[in-house]
Amino acid sequence: MSNKEKERILTGDRPTGKLHLGHYVGSLQNRVELQEEYDTFLIIADVQALTTNFEQPEKLGEDVRQVARDYLAAGIDPEKTTIFVQSMVPEIAELTIFFSMLVTVNQLRHNPTIKSEADQYGYKEMSYGFLGYPVSQAADISFCRANLVPVGEDQIPHIEQTRKIVRKFNNLYGEVFPEPKALISDFPRLMGLDGKSKMSKSLNNAIYLSDSVEEVNKKIMQAKTDPARIHKDDPGHPEVCTVFHYHEAFNKEESGEIASRCRAGTIGCVACKKRMAKKLNEFLDPMRERRKKYLENPELIEEIIQKGTKRARKEAAITLKKVREVMKIDYFNN
Amino acid sequence: MSNKEKERILTGDRPTGKLHLGHYVGSLQNRVELQEEYDTFLIIADVQALTTNFEQPEKLGEDVRQVARDYLAAGIDPEKTTIFVQSMVPEIAELTIFFSMLVTVNQLRHNPTIKSEADQYGYKEMSYGFLGYPVSQAADISFCRANLVPVGEDQIPHIEQTRKIVRKFNNLYGEVFPEPKALISDFPRLMGLDGKSKMSKSLNNAIYLSDSVEEVNKKIMQAKTDPARIHKDDPGHPEVCTVFHYHEAFNKEESGEIASRCRAGTIGCVACKKRMAKKLNEFLDPMRERRKKYLENPELIEEIIQKGTKRARKEAAITLKKVREVMKIDYFNN
Ligand code: SF4
Ligand code: SF4
Repeated sequence: MSNKEKERILTGDRPTGKLHLGHYVGSLQNRVELQEEYDTFLIIADVQALTTNFEQPEKLGEDVRQVARDYLAAGIDPEKTTIFVQSMVPEIAELTIFFSMLVTVNQLRHNPTIKSEADQYGYKEMSYGFLGYPVSQAADISFCRANLVPVGEDQIPHIEQTRKIVRKFNNLYGEVFPEPKALISDFPRLMGLDGKSKMSKSLNNAIYLSDSVEEVNKKIMQAKTDPARIHKDDPGHPEVCTVFHYHEAFNKEESGEIASRCRAGTIGCVACKKRMAKKLNEFLDPMRERRKKYLENPELIEEIIQKGTKRARKEAAITLKKVREVMKIDYFNN
Repeated sequence: MSNKEKERILTGDRPTGKLHLGHYVGSLQNRVELQEEYDTFLIIADVQALTTNFEQPEKLGEDVRQVARDYLAAGIDPEKTTIFVQSMVPEIAELTIFFSMLVTVNQLRHNPTIKSEADQYGYKEMSYGFLGYPVSQAADISFCRANLVPVGEDQIPHIEQTRKIVRKFNNLYGEVFPEPKALISDFPRLMGLDGKSKMSKSLNNAIYLSDSVEEVNKKIMQAKTDPARIHKDDPGHPEVCTVFHYHEAFNKEESGEIASRCRAGTIGCVACKKRMAKKLNEFLDPMRERRKKYLENPELIEEIIQKGTKRARKEAAITLKKVREVMKIDYFNN
């Protein structure tokens, strides 16, 4: 089936550093599967990263390359997925400006992202750009006329804002954009190594897709297990153990046996962790193989992003031409 | 002196219909003079017109051509002034997005334009785009690195907002933009034909630059004069007469004589009006001549705007290249 007949997905991330296993089970794995069936546009949302991090842009360049390497290592196929950088598609900025007239300040204040940010820091000092985050998101989705956005249940209200803006545009000017639908997947949340919170860079409890064998071994050895187990033949409670949580996520086939042996006290935590680390490394090995290629040939990353961005701009130009037509601002067939 | 050595001006209008004599004395005349000395960029701010008028874009195309014709008729020389259309320079949208992170919602709420709009209609239903009007204005001025903006005294606070944004950008990232200065001219305000308010399209009291001889004659005949004059030899009070106000603006050399004769009751209002209409028509004749050329050859308007827009985009590209460099988002020398 050619891309032209496929439904189109828009998905992506802000480039804020290395991706970890939580990102993998939470979205990357899903994207790798979806690219087989859908025409996937994968945005590296660097302008959005600027809205919260505008005072340290110097890191962005490396972060953009890092996230691209993580995508490719995880199995995103640049022949199937269009990987592109937001700031390199000026049409997204143009569309943001047009959309910004179709939403009131009040509607934005009710958006869940904006509300939660305001609850934390107040509205007073919120930047104008941050308040417009839902508008910018609507432009990210719509510039390529995506009709599907893979999200978790909790993110449906975000897509609703985009649907509202797009609907208003279509009603006012003429049908240009599909109303994007949420492609709901209930992504499991992966626990961090501390066993307390979900895996997150800021909590320093993450295993990265780019971690070496040694780093993975070391991190798993330090992972929080059942605190009730003092001796290796004490009966354990796998349901409270982080390592067991990882067995369930990455070693499904052995997890039943491990649970029984842990409860019976016939497997020690060190042995159990070693098994986990081995499994994880086996899981990460093909990613390491792919990553190596890109680290040794960094020009490949640039080529892939340039090519993806070129395709994104091609679609953007088609969209903006239609937008100018229906808005009747194509004064000179521009 | 080449353009390169000249200081650069940004000025312009929203395309909202025909320009009238009030526009001429209030800004056009000044621009015609300034173009001799400065490298003038003249923006037709159609995107800003959309922020207040987004529900009727179909008129914009004709309005853009109309304002361009009015500029050229009034004496704007396309060899000296770069006339361009805002929506045709996508770099302005990009710059607006970058600037939108450098200003808080609170600062915008204190901007005089936003405040007066909010006082009239409330904040609740203000569009996000309208709230960002000062940000968009900063981008209009800065995309071509203009250092001067001709304004009246009352508009200085508007320029101050741009200066703040630009200063913040320069401090955070690196020196890209000049802090634009207000080029203050105390433009006289021209009274409307009703003698009650300043000349304005919406009050239906305007003489347009594109009015015919007959229209001018008719309008001047209907203009409000001194209500105390019943008979043509009653002593008059030129200081309360709209027609006299026009004599002062467009017939300075005879205005002293006319005032004396009006006070002495030795000139009738009809004669006085005829003199005024004649003067005005003499004043408008060269504009009519120029306008005729553009009406007969509408492709000239398109050529001039395309050429101006091309030059604007060339300057915009230089600016955005610098912006990407200092923001360190020129990841691939883009
Ligand atoms: S044996 Fe394995 S599952 Fe049981 S507590 Fe130890 S590490 Fe966790
Ligand atoms: S004579 Fe002229 S200046 Fe005097 S009131 Fe009549 S129109 Fe006005």
